[in-house]
Amino acid sequence: MSARLRVGLIGLGRLGRVYARDLASRIAETRLAAVADPIGTLAAEVAAEFDVPKHYADPLALVDDASVDALVIVSPTHTHRELVVEAAARRKPTFCEKPPALALDEVTAMRQAIAGAGMFFQMGFMRRFDAGYASAKKQIEAGRIGTPLVFKATSRDPFRPSLEYANPKSSGGMLIDMGIHDFDLARWFMGDVKTVSTIGATIAYPELATVGDIDNAIASLTFATGKLGVVDLTRSGIYGYDISTEILGLEGTIKIGYLRETPVMVLTKNSVAHDTVPYFMERFRDAYTTQLQNFAQNVLNDRTPPITIDDGLEALRIGVAATRAHESGRAVAVADMHA
Amino acid sequence: MSARLRVGLIGLGRLGRVYARDLASRIAETRLAAVADPIGTLAAEVAAEFDVPKHYADPLALVDDASVDALVIVSPTHTHRELVVEAAARRKPTFCEKPPALALDEVTAMRQAIAGAGMFFQMGFMRRFDAGYASAKKQIEAGRIGTPLVFKATSRDPFRPSLEYANPKSSGGMLIDMGIHDFDLARWFMGDVKTVSTIGATIAYPELATVGDIDNAIASLTFATGKLGVVDLTRSGIYGYDISTEILGLEGTIKIGYLRETPVMVLTKNSVAHDTVPYFMERFRDAYTTQLQNFAQNVLNDRTPPITIDDGLEALRIGVAATRAHESGRAVAVADMHA
Amino acid sequence: MSARLRVGLIGLGRLGRVYARDLASRIAETRLAAVADPIGTLAAEVAAEFDVPKHYADPLALVDDASVDALVIVSPTHTHRELVVEAAARRKPTFCEKPPALALDEVTAMRQAIAGAGMFFQMGFMRRFDAGYASAKKQIEAGRIGTPLVFKATSRDPFRPSLEYANPKSSGGMLIDMGIHDFDLARWFMGDVKTVSTIGATIAYPELATVGDIDNAIASLTFATGKLGVVDLTRSGIYGYDISTEILGLEGTIKIGYLRETPVMVLTKNSVAHDTVPYFMERFRDAYTTQLQNFAQNVLNDRTPPITIDDGLEALRIGVAATRAHESGRAVAVADMHA
Amino acid sequence: MSARLRVGLIGLGRLGRVYARDLASRIAETRLAAVADPIGTLAAEVAAEFDVPKHYADPLALVDDASVDALVIVSPTHTHRELVVEAAARRKPTFCEKPPALALDEVTAMRQAIAGAGMFFQMGFMRRFDAGYASAKKQIEAGRIGTPLVFKATSRDPFRPSLEYANPKSSGGMLIDMGIHDFDLARWFMGDVKTVSTIGATIAYPELATVGDIDNAIASLTFATGKLGVVDLTRSGIYGYDISTEILGLEGTIKIGYLRETPVMVLTKNSVAHDTVPYFMERFRDAYTTQLQNFAQNVLNDRTPPITIDDGLEALRIGVAATRAHESGRAVAVADMHA
Repeated sequence: MSARLRVGLIGLGRLGRVYARDLASRIAETRLAAVADPIGTLAAEVAAEFDVPKHYADPLALVDDASVDALVIVSPTHTHRELVVEAAARRKPTFCEKPPALALDEVTAMRQAIAGAGMFFQMGFMRRFDAGYASAKKQIEAGRIGTPLVFKATSRDPFRPSLEYANPKSSGGMLIDMGIHDFDLARWFMGDVKTVSTIGATIAYPELATVGDIDNAIASLTFATGKLGVVDLTRSGIYGYDISTEILGLEGTIKIGYLRETPVMVLTKNSVAHDTVPYFMERFRDAYTTQLQNFAQNVLNDRTPPITIDDGLEALRIGVAATRAHESGRAVAVADMHA
Repeated sequence: MSARLRVGLIGLGRLGRVYARDLASRIAETRLAAVADPIGTLAAEVAAEFDVPKHYADPLALVDDASVDALVIVSPTHTHRELVVEAAARRKPTFCEKPPALALDEVTAMRQAIAGAGMFFQMGFMRRFDAGYASAKKQIEAGRIGTPLVFKATSRDPFRPSLEYANPKSSGGMLIDMGIHDFDLARWFMGDVKTVSTIGATIAYPELATVGDIDNAIASLTFATGKLGVVDLTRSGIYGYDISTEILGLEGTIKIGYLRETPVMVLTKNSVAHDTVPYFMERFRDAYTTQLQNFAQNVLNDRTPPITIDDGLEALRIGVAATRAHESGRAVAVADMHA
Repeated sequence: MSARLRVGLIGLGRLGRVYARDLASRIAETRLAAVADPIGTLAAEVAAEFDVPKHYADPLALVDDASVDALVIVSPTHTHRELVVEAAARRKPTFCEKPPALALDEVTAMRQAIAGAGMFFQMGFMRRFDAGYASAKKQIEAGRIGTPLVFKATSRDPFRPSLEYANPKSSGGMLIDMGIHDFDLARWFMGDVKTVSTIGATIAYPELATVGDIDNAIASLTFATGKLGVVDLTRSGIYGYDISTEILGLEGTIKIGYLRETPVMVLTKNSVAHDTVPYFMERFRDAYTTQLQNFAQNVLNDRTPPITIDDGLEALRIGVAATRAHESGRAVAVADMHA
Repeated sequence: MSARLRVGLIGLGRLGRVYARDLASRIAETRLAAVADPIGTLAAEVAAEFDVPKHYADPLALVDDASVDALVIVSPTHTHRELVVEAAARRKPTFCEKPPALALDEVTAMRQAIAGAGMFFQMGFMRRFDAGYASAKKQIEAGRIGTPLVFKATSRDPFRPSLEYANPKSSGGMLIDMGIHDFDLARWFMGDVKTVSTIGATIAYPELATVGDIDNAIASLTFATGKLGVVDLTRSGIYGYDISTEILGLEGTIKIGYLRETPVMVLTKNSVAHDTVPYFMERFRDAYTTQLQNFAQNVLNDRTPPITIDDGLEALRIGVAATRAHESGRAVAVADMHA
């Protein structure tokens, strides 16, 4: 394999380290050329672990490094805008983890920079690369369930996030932080969303109210086509990480999701039991790798990205609409959500 | 067994005939003393089939029959009010199939008649007698999942009802006709409902719009306790009769429901497949029998009914609120639904 | 319904009482005309409970009762021969619970009496009337899995039988007592069995060895067609009554069986759990009723019985061969098992 | 990570290429230092694909290469003995894929060479590294199901092997080729096997008889402890790669295995269906990687191998006994299987 993409990775938190491993060793099309993280000696440590030639405390220095062909951004959301704008200035092909930003005007700015530079930009929504979701999409397109009528999605985190993380100022709040994945799936399977109505409450972890977040919510969606949807979100899925989605069509339905981590069933006098998926990294491990591989292949082969900044923007608009709908107690039109 | 309850059965449609069989032979505590139906020779035929001593074309004649100890009413909804009022006038213990009526003022009239006469009246909501729902209720009360936080219910009919049946004038519309079961479960598991928001559409069977009904809907509920709920209803569950309910609690979740009719799995080169439950009679066959048996035992042993006219009224109020919410596009307070 | 079969029921143990209820009330084609059991006042009690006109302490008196059209025999196995021979003398259509007897010569005697009298005789193997097994049979005959190649069956009792019951002198031993159901299914699905090899041991409940029984066994079968089979039996299926059968064919496989009693799944931090089927009466309740109804219909309509004394004989021969194979440690030819 | 194990890989068939990828990129503890395969330019191609410094057509040249710290042998079974003996002469830590050899005397020779040299040798049985089997083992050791009583295993290949592959001269025949995995699991979970009885037949693919192999078999096992086991093997599991194992204990049972490749369920009017696992590489992909990683860690950290040549020898002895039992129609004692 002659041409490998020399990738610079920005952000070395939990997911960032997984990406480091993937880019360094699991993806045939990439080399991990540089890593960056402003926190302490993190960049140096990760560079040592994965034999990465360069490491930076300053992400912008990495963006500027000529030995870096392309960028993977998995740093905190509030840093995305500046990094993407700088990447655009250098026309470096960029992959950016979701959400693109928390404020619509930030995404608009990113969008303009990308478009202005004519830069390759791929938005990260890893579920689309999960074997289950990908298979469902293909089967629906092949007509297996007829015209899709109703979209249903459930996302459950198995424990309360830290109050610091949950704070809507950094996370965007549960409807954006968790919901954006389901809102992206909603658009992917059903097309544009027209209106959102939301009920939500802080009923599992009262302490979340102190930072202004909720822990359970139900968002009803109407699509531009007149079809219906519903997304329910829970921070208190205490029994395991439970992500399930269903698309009900005129001739059948497709259900995506499972709960089991290992194929072991234990039957005793008191119960028939199995384990559950612990968290997102276990559930979507392969999807994350496949997504980065897709990014590298697209850049190497001059293909257009399957997920664009517009997809990020539209999913965020639904999340913002869902949040407003919750605050106002009324249905909110997504089209009214402007930067 | 010396004392059997001599039951008069009014209404001999599909469900009525099942009740005839149950009352005549499957329930040790009852004898089927009389049947009534105004249509043709139906009453005579059913009487012959099940060795029933008396049969009437006029339901009121049956109500008046002194050899009848108690009544089971499964006639069309619009006849309930008159029959219950007449039963109350004779203080005959009465079981009445859901919904109690389609208009709130009718139920109020029934309620007053029942209260005025001090009559035993048991409302029919058979799901509460299903082994699955009963077990879930017991486990929740035993604290198995901690405090319930979110109620989720899905009801799917496997085919379109006839336009005549679907007409909201006779059925109440899908949100009442199908939804009333789920709204009753919502109250049973979670307590009173405070508000309802609904989205709905005629997207599977356009012809339903000609009689003014919808075929898919999603109703979001907030409970008086601040907890959340969602009910989604479908007339186009083409793959089978699919009734599933979940109660998510602070320490776990309970899922009730299954799809399989027989315990047979067929695995071939193309698929791993099993059958589905055809329709409500197959899914809730035992629940119907258990419910009638419970009624007979309550009457024979002077016990208070587990489901009252108030339960019927409240479930109907939620159904009416859901319908109004759909029409208005706004959240509707159940408390505002008056007779 | 004019013509109901007036049935006399002999044997009022646990299963006998279920049959009493079925014959008295659940089966439209029958009336329970008389019951008999030599133990104390059992017959009188059951007669009172189900409004049965006659009751006997002496089973032969019931056989002789002219008001009894047909017999259902569910008394202890060692009584079957005499009762069937007496029934044959009166040419009373008879249903007899499995096993026909414990010794091959007894079954031969019954067979001769039945043939000599030209009497209607239906052998009881209720699994054939279970919706799951019946559906599997139909699907196999329709070619759904191609030519059947391998038969696999597992039967697990959830607890140890009493030592008195387990004693091979009365039960025939586990390979006959439990195995006869699976051996009948083996023949039903695959045709005649040629040889049996068995390994077995008393490894769960050492006390069973004191009466000469085992608690776990595996019997390998070769069929006359050259196809293969295996039956594993367990008295220590502590987690629930677990009956499962599979037929692997050239183009697919069919698996019959399930473990769940109610459609409820409970998911907590420690497990995802559901209940199990407690015991045979819960698993095969409907099959028992359907089987008796089939018997009544066959007698009333002059149809030949779907399961004959030969089926009982052949299943017993396999059970005897399996027992001999266990004792000798060698493969045993079923054809060598003579009366 | 300073010290990586420089591995030489011998054998570049289907599994060999997967190992190449794992050793080259997926396992942090290894570098792929050299590859060897006598077929054409295969070694050169694989070396180019994975940036391997050296490649050989002659496996013995690789064994002799001083830059190679350790060997992974996945070449055809008949080559194992010579390679292991040569490896032992150089005391190069060696991982060898199952089966160790087809003839017991060959394994004995390997065993002597290993012992004589005091060489690190790890036998490959990847199922022990599968998350499901590993979890089951741990739970059993923790007492979750009490004392294990019965071992049951089913292995099904989804299609007929080529006649060339199936030929017992190269594969050892189905009882060894497929069965060795289950026989190893039997020993791992239950201890030594005492006797084996086997029935087998060529009933799915008659053409297999031309090379002397069978396509379906059932082997009954008794363990030294008196416990029981059964393994059924099928070449005609046309619906998917189906590997399932159960250990029934005194207080419960553990079932390991699943059939689904993706978590997608499609429900239409005709069926509820999901996909199946295509073949071993999909089912045990992670287990293969984990196994090689374990090998590297053991060598690097001077740990004793978890699976030894003795495990390979004993599993083969059971396979040979099962084959003899099939040929002779009698139970065969494993202890009688000598080199």
